[in-house]
Amino acid sequence: MEQYKSSEARIEEIKYLLANKNLDELPDLLNRTNPVDIVECIEDLSAEEALVLFRLLKKEDAVEVFAELDQSDKEKLQEGLNEDEFKDLLEDLNFDDMIDTLEEMPATMVQEILKTSDSETRDLVNEYLQFPEDSAGTLMTTEFVEVTADMTVAETLAMLEEVGKDKVTVYTCYVTDGTHKLLGYVSLRMIVTREPDTKISELMYEDVIYVYTTDDQEDVAHTFQKYGFTALPVVDNTNRLVGIITVDDIMWIIEQEDTEDFQRIAGTTPEEEDYSRMTPWQLAKNRIPWLMFLMISGAFTSTILRRYEDVIQTVIALNMFIPMLTGSGGNAGSQASTLVIRAMATHDIEPRDWAKVVIKEITVGLICGVALGAVAFLKCYFFDKVAMNVALVVALTILAIVVLAKAIGALLPIVAEKLGADPAIMASPLITTIVDSLGLIVYFNIAQAILPGLGI
Amino acid sequence: MEQYKSSEARIEEIKYLLANKNLDELPDLLNRTNPVDIVECIEDLSAEEALVLFRLLKKEDAVEVFAELDQSDKEKLQEGLNEDEFKDLLEDLNFDDMIDTLEEMPATMVQEILKTSDSETRDLVNEYLQFPEDSAGTLMTTEFVEVTADMTVAETLAMLEEVGKDKVTVYTCYVTDGTHKLLGYVSLRMIVTREPDTKISELMYEDVIYVYTTDDQEDVAHTFQKYGFTALPVVDNTNRLVGIITVDDIMWIIEQEDTEDFQRIAGTTPEEEDYSRMTPWQLAKNRIPWLMFLMISGAFTSTILRRYEDVIQTVIALNMFIPMLTGSGGNAGSQASTLVIRAMATHDIEPRDWAKVVIKEITVGLICGVALGAVAFLKCYFFDKVAMNVALVVALTILAIVVLAKAIGALLPIVAEKLGADPAIMASPLITTIVDSLGLIVYFNIAQAILPGLGI
Repeated sequence: MEQYKSSEARIEEIKYLLANKNLDELPDLLNRTNPVDIVECIEDLSAEEALVLFRLLKKEDAVEVFAELDQSDKEKLQEGLNEDEFKDLLEDLNFDDMIDTLEEMPATMVQEILKTSDSETRDLVNEYLQFPEDSAGTLMTTEFVEVTADMTVAETLAMLEEVGKDKVTVYTCYVTDGTHKLLGYVSLRMIVTREPDTKISELMYEDVIYVYTTDDQEDVAHTFQKYGFTALPVVDNTNRLVGIITVDDIMWIIEQEDTEDFQRIAGTTPEEEDYSRMTPWQLAKNRIPWLMFLMISGAFTSTILRRYEDVIQTVIALNMFIPMLTGSGGNAGSQASTLVIRAMATHDIEPRDWAKVVIKEITVGLICGVALGAVAFLKCYFFDKVAMNVALVVALTILAIVVLAKAIGALLPIVAEKLGADPAIMASPLITTIVDSLGLIVYFNIAQAILPGLGI
Repeated sequence: MEQYKSSEARIEEIKYLLANKNLDELPDLLNRTNPVDIVECIEDLSAEEALVLFRLLKKEDAVEVFAELDQSDKEKLQEGLNEDEFKDLLEDLNFDDMIDTLEEMPATMVQEILKTSDSETRDLVNEYLQFPEDSAGTLMTTEFVEVTADMTVAETLAMLEEVGKDKVTVYTCYVTDGTHKLLGYVSLRMIVTREPDTKISELMYEDVIYVYTTDDQEDVAHTFQKYGFTALPVVDNTNRLVGIITVDDIMWIIEQEDTEDFQRIAGTTPEEEDYSRMTPWQLAKNRIPWLMFLMISGAFTSTILRRYEDVIQTVIALNMFIPMLTGSGGNAGSQASTLVIRAMATHDIEPRDWAKVVIKEITVGLICGVALGAVAFLKCYFFDKVAMNVALVVALTILAIVVLAKAIGALLPIVAEKLGADPAIMASPLITTIVDSLGLIVYFNIAQAILPGLGI
């Protein structure tokens, strides 16, 4: 896409001008560059260069750029800015961006900054800092337009002209009674096409969908996706309107939540930091616990193999199919678990559907198992040239393992959800380990039942 | 969240009233229900009940509900509606929704419907139907506000009052020259606060970010996420403005693209249909090809095990660690591949970074491998009570397998991307199979090098 190329070229040009201390052309170039691209540029710069660049930005761009920076880049700038500059910057940030910045700072520094703020701001900040992590309260902004039901269209438009420029959106106005209780909403589009003396109460939609300050951001994102809104009102536990959340913040949450699910499915500790910015040590730290846990629990398979050592010694041909059998079980199980985890994340299925899902997966397992078993039989008998009854043991085991893996793969994420754990931790690696052990037991038992001379 | 509960209760109430043929109270209840919830309701109804419900909807709600329905539910209604009803409905749909509906219909039926349309619509529809699948062209709508640079604020507002209600958004107006060439954009917010005789050319932002009709929807979604827009203009290859895409359609694309990545990582054919609506046969059909491919390629491991049969016979203790070793390799590899796949999907890393990523993963592999190897040594020696040199073989193999798995896990998705394939197909199952085979070869070679009497 052209704008990618051009934005990359522009970033390179900015870096080139900075490196050559050619500061005359920079302000104009920065002016023509989207703040998001300037953020990308700052990520690559040294603390000194970043500061030079930052001070060349127009005030409104500087505020937007700072809000979008990662914590480590914010700190890079913060160290270079003097106290007054930083305080000015904080005050110009949207309220939610200011809170985000304060949240990451040491408490003593926050208190230092708040000392000079007015008491209203101080109270509001302290209230915000107490919302649960990743809740709607931490996402919302207080810069929304609130109108009361008894206002007229003319009064509303006059108010918008006065306060509109400090609000994150003027396209939806939220209607409350005198005590901030949420009654409905009106869109700017509805207002501008009506007579000036029409009352807001006559225009407003009352069927308003809202979220609570304590709702988890994942549920908020789901509400946005479901209804396709560009903004949602946030109320406290007494249904008073306290903020709004806008769709641009939510797109980022959706990406982050999906990334977390990918990380959990991969068996690593979720991390908000981008992959490209993490050191090998951080990456290893997030991965070792699961690898270790899985290696140690995988030792069950050693115990099982040792227990059936005499079976293997008697029919050595059985041994060579073990990786194929456990591999197929693992694959079948992770197909089921990943699809079920995703279906729960998108609210396509709910935990209460567990019986339906398990029955469906067992049916799928039977279909897949018969197909795989048939091919495995032919392959073992004609290609590996083992005895027909050994081929039969392998085929029956494939069928049993696939059905078992599908059922376990479907059930575990649902159980995790019901227990209040994240279903994604029940993904492929753990299921593979469980299915490996069960699969081996099934294999040797079928072998003992079918093959002569293995005696039970 | 309360609105979930209340929307579910409302859906149940609608179904109850329908089942009891109590049609007097329904219109009012439907009026107070969000169309998205009515869609959920229709999904659960029989064709007859769905039709009764659909005919009770206000026209504007009916249009919105129809646009949101799945293909199978659309067909459910379509069969019951007479030809005129259906044509009226199609005409009232937003242009992009109409195209979506037509795309899924048999070509003969589309021609039948277009016969009575005016030639302008017919040409436009035929043009739309030719855009590549999943391109920006198929997502865009033509109901946007276009103004020319020489118009004044007053003229723009007058135009908005006249045509505004048929446009998907009036909050951003796109500025073109006389030949529809895109010059910039203005927001309604900027317009309403300016003098009536101000020229649009004085107000407009020229630094406009746009996409091409042929751009893939995944790239479009990425542009939305990166810049946080609520709408993006779409231009043809001569830079003429032909449509816009709005954020509500993109939220759905993001969910769908992420779901596809989850499905591919799980080793199943991607499917647009929701999990809950697929039959076991469909699910099995999407899963069997991969399971079969992996089972057959997993047969390499049988060949390798057979080749080293004498090694196993000589030191039978080696055999019992095989599942643990291959399991750890598979886990280590899928951690790397899943994280790399996700980082490429979010454009955190690009294929040109391949060397950096592989070096990083090898470093991570060394750290993880040393930690796992040390624990494996202790476990084998003290817990499984094998000879010290056997424990050493296992520990060294773990280290080698983990490093190998990380490198392959990082490299394969990047190679896939460079070859123009989807990186997600290079995920866990395929990597597991490759790592299993390589791991076994490494294991037996290390054993032959260290253990006496195995002779190379």
